[in-house]
Amino acid sequence: MNKTVSHCLIAHIENDFSGKFGIPRQSGLIDDLTSLIVFEKEYRVKEALRGIEGFSHLWLLWQFSENKDQGWHPTVRPPRLGGNRRVGVFATRSPFRPNAIGLSSVKLIGVENTPDRGTVLLVRGADLMNGTPILDIKPYLPFTDAHPDAVGGFAEAVLGDRLSVEIPPAWEQKIPPEKRKALRKMLTNDPRPSYQEDATRIYKMSFSTYTVSFRVENGILTVTEIQ
Amino acid sequence: MNKTVSHCLIAHIENDFSGKFGIPRQSGLIDDLTSLIVFEKEYRVKEALRGIEGFSHLWLLWQFSENKDQGWHPTVRPPRLGGNRRVGVFATRSPFRPNAIGLSSVKLIGVENTPDRGTVLLVRGADLMNGTPILDIKPYLPFTDAHPDAVGGFAEAVLGDRLSVEIPPAWEQKIPPEKRKALRKMLTNDPRPSYQEDATRIYKMSFSTYTVSFRVENGILTVTEIQ
Repeated sequence: MNKTVSHCLIAHIENDFSGKFGIPRQSGLIDDLTSLIVFEKEYRVKEALRGIEGFSHLWLLWQFSENKDQGWHPTVRPPRLGGNRRVGVFATRSPFRPNAIGLSSVKLIGVENTPDRGTVLLVRGADLMNGTPILDIKPYLPFTDAHPDAVGGFAEAVLGDRLSVEIPPAWEQKIPPEKRKALRKMLTNDPRPSYQEDATRIYKMSFSTYTVSFRVENGILTVTEIQ
Repeated sequence: MNKTVSHCLIAHIENDFSGKFGIPRQSGLIDDLTSLIVFEKEYRVKEALRGIEGFSHLWLLWQFSENKDQGWHPTVRPPRLGGNRRVGVFATRSPFRPNAIGLSSVKLIGVENTPDRGTVLLVRGADLMNGTPILDIKPYLPFTDAHPDAVGGFAEAVLGDRLSVEIPPAWEQKIPPEKRKALRKMLTNDPRPSYQEDATRIYKMSFSTYTVSFRVENGILTVTEIQ
């Protein structure tokens, strides 16, 4: 059998995303979503963050918590490819990999001291569900991490797929004004599981404490209810 | 106590770097170093790499193997700051962190089938020692991973520190021609532990099967012996 190593969960994410459905597929695509990184008690040491405010971006290494015992398969079907083309798992960011470790770059918005939870980090652009456990936080170093000319394979080719979003005002008013832009961006990004294309189907997505229902036809996403 | 998760070692690095001393401090800074990623038997599945050749860059998540039981401290002294300024561990890429997971972007040079070790990846720019265990391989996605305008904190401010390198021809001839450029770049990058500044001291660095001795004075690194 293969060797294994043990890693601890040092922190977790707190944000408005309570369900997996609707989580942006890649970090950074949706900039308006603010998340809090709250350290677990043992790692709640203010000194460990000294100097971090000098960085505009951070890397989060995190544990996919939703797919614990599903194992891995050599190939996966990325939603971005319509769900019917198989590619190797190491050519994707799929959660179903030998080690379910996620990697996301986020913008560092603030470092805040709280009375009850120690020093927390405020970040934007995280594609992580509420409660996602964090394994590591590293500074983003542009001189080694930024390769703007990198070629992105199939993932890049299909990035243009975006939906027009229509939210009737009666429903939109249910959402606090400061969260409306984030909701629109999430919907634009097509939160459907991409395996089916059915204009009559009503999809539901969790957002903050709300359930957003919508349908999609001819590239237009129409919100049908917000509860 | 805190929760832990278990991760498997899926592959390892094979290259010319046999000693920790002299390893480039950040991945990608030294482009000429070629490494092989060899999968462990259980993960030696060609299909798992299908489509990976469409990406120019990859992320490697790896395990710092040299500092297993040293634990972590909230602050570290980065060599780049001369080793006498303490910053928070999460503001650095130091190996001495709660989870000793490293993150490096590399250029994908080739995907090769071998008779004895299955499909291997040929990469460039890895800052990893020979034998370093790999936890995960992910495609580099420029639209989410590249932030060329990111601010890099103190790490950026001191990146200009470079040495002039003088290698007497008699010693340089001991190194195969195709490896000389890589050696020079490693030396330019100042492989000394930065805690001391002693012009009379002879440093030794492992490179491939060689031991390179050198001293440094007034920003000039002079090779004194190659064995």
